[in-house]
Amino acid sequence: MELAEDQNLSALAGSVLIIGTGLLGASVGLALRAQKIPVYLSDVSPTIEAIAEDIGAGRSLRAVATERGVAPSDLRQLLGSEPQLVVVAAPPDVCAQIVVEQLTLWQHAVVIDIASVKLSILQQVQQSGVDTSRYLGTHPMAGREKSGPVAARGELFTSRPFVVCKHPDVSPTAVRLAQTLGIEMGSTLTYLDAAEHDRAVALISHVPQVMSSLMASRLQETPLHALGLAGQGLRDTVRIAGSDPGLWIQILAANSENIVPTLHGVRDDLERLITTLENPTAAGARLDIAQLMSEGNAGVARIPGKHGGAPEAFSQLTVLVDDTPGQIARLLIDIGELGVNIEDLRLEHSPGQPVGMAEISVNPNEHEKLVEDLTSAGWKVVR
Amino acid sequence: MELAEDQNLSALAGSVLIIGTGLLGASVGLALRAQKIPVYLSDVSPTIEAIAEDIGAGRSLRAVATERGVAPSDLRQLLGSEPQLVVVAAPPDVCAQIVVEQLTLWQHAVVIDIASVKLSILQQVQQSGVDTSRYLGTHPMAGREKSGPVAARGELFTSRPFVVCKHPDVSPTAVRLAQTLGIEMGSTLTYLDAAEHDRAVALISHVPQVMSSLMASRLQETPLHALGLAGQGLRDTVRIAGSDPGLWIQILAANSENIVPTLHGVRDDLERLITTLENPTAAGARLDIAQLMSEGNAGVARIPGKHGGAPEAFSQLTVLVDDTPGQIARLLIDIGELGVNIEDLRLEHSPGQPVGMAEISVNPNEHEKLVEDLTSAGWKVVR
Repeated sequence: MELAEDQNLSALAGSVLIIGTGLLGASVGLALRAQKIPVYLSDVSPTIEAIAEDIGAGRSLRAVATERGVAPSDLRQLLGSEPQLVVVAAPPDVCAQIVVEQLTLWQHAVVIDIASVKLSILQQVQQSGVDTSRYLGTHPMAGREKSGPVAARGELFTSRPFVVCKHPDVSPTAVRLAQTLGIEMGSTLTYLDAAEHDRAVALISHVPQVMSSLMASRLQETPLHALGLAGQGLRDTVRIAGSDPGLWIQILAANSENIVPTLHGVRDDLERLITTLENPTAAGARLDIAQLMSEGNAGVARIPGKHGGAPEAFSQLTVLVDDTPGQIARLLIDIGELGVNIEDLRLEHSPGQPVGMAEISVNPNEHEKLVEDLTSAGWKVVR
Repeated sequence: MELAEDQNLSALAGSVLIIGTGLLGASVGLALRAQKIPVYLSDVSPTIEAIAEDIGAGRSLRAVATERGVAPSDLRQLLGSEPQLVVVAAPPDVCAQIVVEQLTLWQHAVVIDIASVKLSILQQVQQSGVDTSRYLGTHPMAGREKSGPVAARGELFTSRPFVVCKHPDVSPTAVRLAQTLGIEMGSTLTYLDAAEHDRAVALISHVPQVMSSLMASRLQETPLHALGLAGQGLRDTVRIAGSDPGLWIQILAANSENIVPTLHGVRDDLERLITTLENPTAAGARLDIAQLMSEGNAGVARIPGKHGGAPEAFSQLTVLVDDTPGQIARLLIDIGELGVNIEDLRLEHSPGQPVGMAEISVNPNEHEKLVEDLTSAGWKVVR
């Protein structure tokens, strides 16, 4: 009986209630709806909830309430039966409270949150005194520099890490359901405890966000003629600075304990660099600058490549392409016909010019032949 | 007579001597050789000079010396006649000295440098007492996070800004020759004086490099399981941190006057943020974080789009693609056949998964129809 229920749960055969239908919640809804799983949507904002329904992320509880003439607050009546899974995709600062409410409201439902910080939420849930065996914190590691359900996509989490943060009291049923959710979304399951998770994301996500915002903030002062000279380096550096301030206030505040020590390191390096550059002809100045730059080299070299392999494992070639319809397609169809798999592709364009460069990463042992074959086919290839 | 000579000069009919044959010098050589212009190469490193010749960037002066049995230092004899143009592509710290030597050595040759900093070089050349009418500082605004002639490509400067920094004493002949060089390389000519140039690049290139290196430096401490979770955000933020320390020591030292004030601004923002995050529950903490994030939003929004138009002028759609040969090509050929021009393309991949997402930017009024047509053609499109 216990086993049968477990199997049923792990198959995600019941309905799912998603609370919070912004970018992430609506994306979860889209992914589950693609698997025909019944999804109900609830958001504190009627507009956000309605948009999430409009894009196909599930059924708006307010719309159900209107249809049936029941109070929108009466979740039990609206859903008809208990949901199998509640996914709390609310902002971090209200996440724990909603998790506790949902654990209290339902008898059997597993409650999973997907917030970007994990330890503070787990601690708040534990301190509330509710039964935490049905609670599990997770983090589908994807996002966009845009927010809201309009930016949602069912494939947002596809092939991205889905971090499951087990805690001592969690039931096997809850863990299996989280795993099923991750699998339904096409994610790669990873296991870290909440504290490990928060330390990891401080370094790979939260501090990069701070650095990007600090840089982008300086551009407010830049004359437009200078910005017109901006290349891909600047664009890449500040891309994530376009992210939603409202969300990041909460993430940075909730994970400040792990972020601050790294920012101290940044500050110390920055102070040293400023002192050096204030007197750039002093003895040792060059060495100080060299040290920062070399440490940057060493750090970036540690990031794994696309398939988790060693960095720099691929060979690059660059092809000049006209900025006309079908040009890139013709290039890539030529490459495809040669049976070569493109590991990565980057298009570079510049202001005011109808021409671009496609930088293509391929397996090193396919590089030479590809250059020759593309050149024979009339492409301008740069070795 | 004067006019005829000018026309001849502006046509770049004579030979070009490139001093410094790393990434940039060798790329200039490749671009000029593609136009059949005679190019001679000189580098302080025999190996770098030989590689530059091997990749087709021009004729190594050491190779010419060996062939003719003359001293490699006797430039006049090696070249046979005076070069029309000398391009100094040496590192910033020796650039001015080489410019002065070349202006002294030749009677008529125009001497152009292409270093990333301009004012300090101009001042050193002026202070040397040589005739500066034949000297002009320029900056072809392109680069790669790789260095050396092996990374060179003739199209490196294609459709990139080529900044010409006129000074009061420069001759029209020298300006026209610089313009011709820019045009031969397919660049977009832009005019700024040396001080304006240095202020602009501090903000759009030098400070971003510092920020990227500061961030990447922190990754030295990151456990590998954390780096395995890294997404595109981190990768973009630290990409340029892979750049050559040797070059950047000189650039940062030479332009420190313009970089330091911006770094002061970064430091002040960072200090404020650290203080806030050390006490994240204090009154006003959220507002402090919000301010930094919003200023980042405002800064990034000021960067012009690809064709120099307003940012965010394009509409994006995302298509799920298998990571097999020809998949992206098939997608793009479909788009090309619909007559739709792709404004930008970004492939996103994740560690360990053979699937990716292509984010495509198109003209907004082509967006809806494209989504429909691609969906009909069987593509998994996310609105």
